[in-house]
Amino acid sequence: MDRVFSFSVLNKDPSCNARLGRLHTAHGSVDTPVFMPVGTQATVKSLDPEDLQKMNCRIILGNTYHLYLRPGTEVISRFGGLHGFMGWDGAILTDSGGFQVFSLAKIREISEEGVLFHSHIDGSRHMMTPEKAIEIQEILGSDIAMSFDECTPYPVDREYARLSMERTLRWAIRGKKRHGKVDQALFGIVQGSVFADLRMECLERLVEIGFDGYALGSLSVGEPKEMMLEVLEKTLPQFPEDAPRYLMGVGTPEDIVEGVRLGVDMFDCVLPTRNARNGTLFTSFGRINIKNSAYVVDGSPVDPECDCYTCRKFSRAYLRHLYVSRELLAYRLNTIHNVHYYLSLMEKIREAITKGNFMEWRKEFYAKRWEQNEAELHFRG
Amino acid sequence: MDRVFSFSVLNKDPSCNARLGRLHTAHGSVDTPVFMPVGTQATVKSLDPEDLQKMNCRIILGNTYHLYLRPGTEVISRFGGLHGFMGWDGAILTDSGGFQVFSLAKIREISEEGVLFHSHIDGSRHMMTPEKAIEIQEILGSDIAMSFDECTPYPVDREYARLSMERTLRWAIRGKKRHGKVDQALFGIVQGSVFADLRMECLERLVEIGFDGYALGSLSVGEPKEMMLEVLEKTLPQFPEDAPRYLMGVGTPEDIVEGVRLGVDMFDCVLPTRNARNGTLFTSFGRINIKNSAYVVDGSPVDPECDCYTCRKFSRAYLRHLYVSRELLAYRLNTIHNVHYYLSLMEKIREAITKGNFMEWRKEFYAKRWEQNEAELHFRG
Ligand SMILES: [Zn+2]
Ligand SMILES: [Zn+2]
Repeated sequence: MDRVFSFSVLNKDPSCNARLGRLHTAHGSVDTPVFMPVGTQATVKSLDPEDLQKMNCRIILGNTYHLYLRPGTEVISRFGGLHGFMGWDGAILTDSGGFQVFSLAKIREISEEGVLFHSHIDGSRHMMTPEKAIEIQEILGSDIAMSFDECTPYPVDREYARLSMERTLRWAIRGKKRHGKVDQALFGIVQGSVFADLRMECLERLVEIGFDGYALGSLSVGEPKEMMLEVLEKTLPQFPEDAPRYLMGVGTPEDIVEGVRLGVDMFDCVLPTRNARNGTLFTSFGRINIKNSAYVVDGSPVDPECDCYTCRKFSRAYLRHLYVSRELLAYRLNTIHNVHYYLSLMEKIREAITKGNFMEWRKEFYAKRWEQNEAELHFRG
Repeated sequence: MDRVFSFSVLNKDPSCNARLGRLHTAHGSVDTPVFMPVGTQATVKSLDPEDLQKMNCRIILGNTYHLYLRPGTEVISRFGGLHGFMGWDGAILTDSGGFQVFSLAKIREISEEGVLFHSHIDGSRHMMTPEKAIEIQEILGSDIAMSFDECTPYPVDREYARLSMERTLRWAIRGKKRHGKVDQALFGIVQGSVFADLRMECLERLVEIGFDGYALGSLSVGEPKEMMLEVLEKTLPQFPEDAPRYLMGVGTPEDIVEGVRLGVDMFDCVLPTRNARNGTLFTSFGRINIKNSAYVVDGSPVDPECDCYTCRKFSRAYLRHLYVSRELLAYRLNTIHNVHYYLSLMEKIREAITKGNFMEWRKEFYAKRWEQNEAELHFRG
């Protein structure tokens, strides 16, 4: 069996590093730049697979750490993997569990072998290693698996960043060696904190090992936004042209626009789903909070430019009522809107790159926010 | 404008009092016997209007008490009523608020005028009267409104039951006088606790006043099941043939089957939606709780006989995982199944009455439960 996974660059924007591409996976093709909604526990919170299909969602992210702990690989393997278990026919990328082991679990010990940790659910003891992270992801049957990495916190000094980066590289070699699933791509993760030279060295050595794609990890973990952009600016031009580039766990709509400008192909973030649950909704003119009493009798949709189910059918007044009444439907309708907002943002971005006018589109993207909601701006075009 | 509402009896079962009928409302026709899912706060908890349409739901219930307190009639009137506010095109029956005023609110004073109560949400003081209950329901724009009644608790002595019933009758007269919305039906509510003669007297006097339909209130409020059945058995034959008969707030699938047998046309109950949220699912062979560890790797649907979205797409193992992981999708998928179960139960009941073999169908209904789940039985066929 040949490797199923491939990636091709279809178009490059003439005025920046934005690029249009296509991922071919065992579960369909995916146009890039792409945003992957996060489905931590085998569901994109409050949505069902049909909801995602209706939004033209083609790829979601699953969390190895969570799924390993609950329901566990024994259960998921009975269903032939995560696709069968959760009833999702599109593509799936699974993270390696690295981020959650370092952020959610109670760590007992980090060693060369891996990480000994206690489950955040029941305190049970587990050992995660680069090999085990691959084994679990093979059982999950994701279309794209991630190497197990040490998620470097911020801030760290240069020396620690190098040591952590070196360990991530040794773990990447072990994971790559263990990986054998031919219809599953394996991506390497670039570490090195905010030190651009370390990032570039890490990338170079990952490319020598050879992966199907390359990710930037441990960004948007507390460093100033400018530092993240600097790392992206310096390192992205060094990434192989013919492999997908994935900026992990990032970010706001503005972060995504900037990431695309600098050459990123893939994004994921909990923001659209998490914000939906606290009432914060993304719109073409910035964020709004649906709890706001300004919406008590507001008959207009969340975003007049949005054609999601929520905006087509329901008013701000109704959504506010559901939210303040703590109705379950509030979370679902808010999530439908926010995820649709992100996916349609990516569609507009791809359209702009296709036309070769991404930088003009970007200017308008910011102008619209600037005009109506100055305070929401993170960047200016 | 002529009265829009009408009801016709289409068929009677030869071996019991079950009857097939059709309600004609300003928002479509509804076949009876019918079950109305409860949409307390302008949403059937966790479902959106499309979910309900897909289940062929034609009528839902809204709660006057809750909607009056939040979002309030000022908000809902801006949307031309509850239909516009919540995006529901089917029929709506609103209760009078009586039940909630007596069960949820902190009552300050019951008088001939009405009930002075404190909101369960913010403690604010409100007066509910028979006239006000009608005014609110006219603004809500429901297709069927209910008279404001005193919800008699259980147990009460005969004297109190009579006094309460007499007050309900005086309130019914005042409500009827106030009611003027020509495209809205008005139903009267029969009280009298478990005293069949009081119930029959109340009914007779309500019929003299003249309503579009007649409901039985304050049943299934703690009295033994046999007592409820006895009240139904004695009073239902006295109900006018050509008006719909509504058994309020009842009940289990078994209660509904018995109610239909005795001649009830309309039902509502929070059971399918509330149980969905605590993991209890209704099936053709009785109830199951999806939390049960027996379902950890169970690849079969909740009910192999069910063709709801949940049963067509997802396994018990997946639903269990969602439930124990407290995922929002659990409540939605469970609710879809439970409401579908109730609606499809009614469909089967109507089919049996059409064929004139309701009693045979009822025997099978119980046999299936008896075989597989003896402990779940409430009645025997
Ligand atoms: Zn929208
Ligand atoms: Zn079902």
